Amino acid sequence: MMATSNGPGPVRPIAVIGGTGPAGMGLALRWARAGETVIIGSRNEERAQQTAAAIYRRAGPEANVSGMENAAACAAADILMLTVPFEGQAALLKQLKPAMTAGSILIDATVPLAASVGGRASRTLGVWQGSAAQQAAELVPKEVSVVAAFHNVSADELNGDAPLDCDVIVCSNDADASQLTRELAAKIPGVRALDGGPLQNARIVEQITALLIGMNIRYKKGHAGIRITGLPPTAYR
Amino acid sequence: MMATSNGPGPVRPIAVIGGTGPAGMGLALRWARAGETVIIGSRNEERAQQTAAAIYRRAGPEANVSGMENAAACAAADILMLTVPFEGQAALLKQLKPAMTAGSILIDATVPLAASVGGRASRTLGVWQGSAAQQAAELVPKEVSVVAAFHNVSADELNGDAPLDCDVIVCSNDADASQLTRELAAKIPGVRALDGGPLQNARIVEQITALLIGMNIRYKKGHAGIRITGLPPTAYR
Repeated sequence: MMATSNGPGPVRPIAVIGGTGPAGMGLALRWARAGETVIIGSRNEERAQQTAAAIYRRAGPEANVSGMENAAACAAADILMLTVPFEGQAALLKQLKPAMTAGSILIDATVPLAASVGGRASRTLGVWQGSAAQQAAELVPKEVSVVAAFHNVSADELNGDAPLDCDVIVCSNDADASQLTRELAAKIPGVRALDGGPLQNARIVEQITALLIGMNIRYKKGHAGIRITGLPPTAYR
Repeated sequence: MMATSNGPGPVRPIAVIGGTGPAGMGLALRWARAGETVIIGSRNEERAQQTAAAIYRRAGPEANVSGMENAAACAAADILMLTVPFEGQAALLKQLKPAMTAGSILIDATVPLAASVGGRASRTLGVWQGSAAQQAAELVPKEVSVVAAFHNVSADELNGDAPLDCDVIVCSNDADASQLTRELAAKIPGVRALDGGPLQNARIVEQITALLIGMNIRYKKGHAGIRITGLPPTAYR
């Protein structure tokens, strides 16, 4: 394993739960290329390993990527990246709760699209807790910090080779977890990571995805993303 | 009056209702500079005229800008730009309803910030109709088209001289009114106008403002705005 993974200190693998879907695969690919140790998680271990192999082929021989069943991936890592459709989020978190280790970080990218219940992907559902990320926070052990991020990046672009043209807005009540997530985001070429404030702000960041999906439909062949302008240069790192 | 105002055809003055506040003044200044005929509306006619005079001094002798009491401004124009705090929106629209002429366009920039009821400007209130713009649509005569736009532009930047670094997302159920609003937005240097879809999408665009305000607070001295990336070049005009 590469000692440079997520900066100084011991290697902290990233388990991408739901890592065989387009968003999870894309993040795993970008992080594998950046030298991170990545574990693809899936309900099906074999599928996880196939996806890991595909990422390895694209990321090259330096890549450190493996595939495991979701709970095993969860137990093997303390950075958990959740990329599942909204309709699967709560059940999966309840199932994985016993496998999560204290001090873990759960990065949630879930968007409560109305498509989850047969509606449009350009509309969202109201979530009782305020946002999908806040729902996640209710379902994980107390000792796990939840961070909301990566909602607005195009899965297609993540799976490509070009730098992205998108900012990642990171929301969390845990300043250290937010900082670590911003560092991971900034390892993806073209991404700028911004502090989006407390976890409750995820309700806005999640909604933006529905707006971007609507624009992709309206303007055809779009891979819409966002940039935040007008902040002091120190904001963008 | 200048015949070039809002493109070919007869001049269509823009009444900026609440035009003595920072956002209204900034839009009026930018449109006056672009050759549009602008009427500043205010509860107080004298204040409207003072603001109009101040804009005239900055925009130069070609500028066509005057000041009127809100209802008179409303009656004198068929493009109405509403820039008032959320807490004043409904009462003002009820008052102005009789003065609105059939076929008018109401461009609403209202953001339902929690600050309206003593809360934070980085949080929003839930609006029964879904958004402040949809509330506006319920309060104007049927023959008036409502467009939601200009929520995310910085009032400070509008009142400056530099080009803006911000997109304007325009939501409306009336395609012609949306198009006209995008043309007006694009007259502001640096602004790109985008079709944000139906009026109901204003609920997302309004929320973004609260997120940007939070970033301005967090990063200090920011004038945060947004750019939408990844759309086909034809989207940006």
